[in-house]
Amino acid sequence: MNFNDLRFLVLAEGQFGPLSSKTANGVIRYTPERCVAVLDSKQAGKTSQDVIGFGGALPVVATFEEGVAKGANALLIGIAPQGGKLPESWRGWIKQAITRKLEIWSGLHFFIADDPEFAALQKQHGTIIHDLRKPPANLPISGGRVRELDATVILTVGSDCNVGKMTASLQLRDGLKKKGQRVAFAGTGQTGIMIEGWGIGVDAVVSDFVGGAAEKLTMDAARDADIVLVEGQGSLIHPGYSAVTYGLIHGSLPHAFILCTQPSRQTIDSNDWVRIPSLTDLIQMHELVMKYLRPAKVIGISMNTYDLSDAAAKDAIKRAQDETGLPATDPVRYDPKPLVDVIDSFHRNRIK
Amino acid sequence: MNFNDLRFLVLAEGQFGPLSSKTANGVIRYTPERCVAVLDSKQAGKTSQDVIGFGGALPVVATFEEGVAKGANALLIGIAPQGGKLPESWRGWIKQAITRKLEIWSGLHFFIADDPEFAALQKQHGTIIHDLRKPPANLPISGGRVRELDATVILTVGSDCNVGKMTASLQLRDGLKKKGQRVAFAGTGQTGIMIEGWGIGVDAVVSDFVGGAAEKLTMDAARDADIVLVEGQGSLIHPGYSAVTYGLIHGSLPHAFILCTQPSRQTIDSNDWVRIPSLTDLIQMHELVMKYLRPAKVIGISMNTYDLSDAAAKDAIKRAQDETGLPATDPVRYDPKPLVDVIDSFHRNRIK
Repeated sequence: MNFNDLRFLVLAEGQFGPLSSKTANGVIRYTPERCVAVLDSKQAGKTSQDVIGFGGALPVVATFEEGVAKGANALLIGIAPQGGKLPESWRGWIKQAITRKLEIWSGLHFFIADDPEFAALQKQHGTIIHDLRKPPANLPISGGRVRELDATVILTVGSDCNVGKMTASLQLRDGLKKKGQRVAFAGTGQTGIMIEGWGIGVDAVVSDFVGGAAEKLTMDAARDADIVLVEGQGSLIHPGYSAVTYGLIHGSLPHAFILCTQPSRQTIDSNDWVRIPSLTDLIQMHELVMKYLRPAKVIGISMNTYDLSDAAAKDAIKRAQDETGLPATDPVRYDPKPLVDVIDSFHRNRIK
Repeated sequence: MNFNDLRFLVLAEGQFGPLSSKTANGVIRYTPERCVAVLDSKQAGKTSQDVIGFGGALPVVATFEEGVAKGANALLIGIAPQGGKLPESWRGWIKQAITRKLEIWSGLHFFIADDPEFAALQKQHGTIIHDLRKPPANLPISGGRVRELDATVILTVGSDCNVGKMTASLQLRDGLKKKGQRVAFAGTGQTGIMIEGWGIGVDAVVSDFVGGAAEKLTMDAARDADIVLVEGQGSLIHPGYSAVTYGLIHGSLPHAFILCTQPSRQTIDSNDWVRIPSLTDLIQMHELVMKYLRPAKVIGISMNTYDLSDAAAKDAIKRAQDETGLPATDPVRYDPKPLVDVIDSFHRNRIK
């Protein structure tokens, strides 16, 4: 099916909420035109707006049937199963979707098309299953091929996981589009891929090929764009995921970074023994790891201030500007213009 | 079979040589007692000493049969197939080995036990096949668990791939053993694993779990040791493999680094657009990427001078000492004592 013809029933059973259904929320925020219903029996009858604060009248339904009645032609897995194992109820919905030829869009670590029961049903009905985390075959070892591109490459990096790197990239993409730039978003995680319809889940790639995945993504995105915004992952100081972050940096070799932070966070999530250093220190670290390959600077600070009052958020932004001398804002809560403008002018200066 | 009872026929067909058969050479250098013959029809009749300069009277044979006649009870794949595809002749030898119940030790990216023809034969004969690059199941996400260990963790890092990180680790292990230390070598690549009989090929691990693999390896190695030498991979400035290097650092969280270099090399191998920076710059980079997790210093420089004259090698070592103020030597060509002593005293100071 053509990506723009997809109409998603968004599976978020028991977890639909402002902080608990990251993938569902990303898809609803950035591609509302492709969402027809959210499946969560615990919130049925409400709207997306009621539950997560955006998404307007998008209905939350209790059953798979109701979702199909709303016009769904695809099932999108919008949450991760708690504990890792696929719940029985999910198996039922997935089987119904395959049987009724609804495309499956899944970013789970568990590959749906590899499950014997699902695979047998798929064979019988010819349904398309997208396991978005499954890496493409024949990825290269990265070797600086992106240096041949004309496009300006911007990578979002962060002080931690889950501070808003994808969201910042998408807000900046929209802002740059409005300014008339030919800009592409290169998704590196399941949500970004579901929003764009393509990408590579780099965390599922064998480690020797992380850089190669980033290189391929960047080159593919640059085909129709003058500015490529690569979605960052993890953090250079995250004890668990930093290898992915580092491979993304050396594979995409960005011309510049946007550093994403959450000012209220003092330590790494789930690793409170790692204190998050100052913005100045984070900037120094990112610039140093690029120094010997292709020098690049942090050119702006994107701040996730959702958990601060308006006054505290503005104060945090002001302090970040003062500390770094760089434009800073929360591009979701406030006007993304300071960051859009800095990328726009960085690009214009680079190509002139 | 007990690891110490293995007697390897080392497959190095067409490639046995000082620079062209890295895995074969490592196994011959460090576990000569487990090698009974090298299979390379082009060098048959010579000894290992003749061909690679060490390994004494270990014979090079032309056929699989001659290897078995020398007492081989296992086939060790000591080279990588050129072009990536398994040559027909290798398939024949592997089939013979399986049929005759010789254990297979392979670190190829191609998993022998997953090949339908080999798998069928294996099932029939019950032969043991070790695909050493196959990652263990259920690796954790790294989260600083190594901080609970009493052991001192030393990681070898490098200016590039293939500059002697594994060799340095093994020379230092032997030197520390002689000093009476309880020391373990944690192998992270196929050759290291073949020498020790255990380890994890970290470059084949899914990128989210590279740190977790390093963490598990380090903890396993620390069970019976007071000093753990973790075999490094790649380089922080290698465009293709740096993600693996970075994950190894953040998973093993070494107390100190030994920096391995090859003084004659000016640029990264196969990536001559990346100039290798000074030792001072490399040290700064390694110390910075540990700074916010567990500060660690480079405490010694291991130099691979095989391609320099004695005078040039000694001069390079002297210059490295002068530049860094650290002990430096080529631990293969010269006495490894300066590096053994610095690790020994670092460990004694740490635990006192």
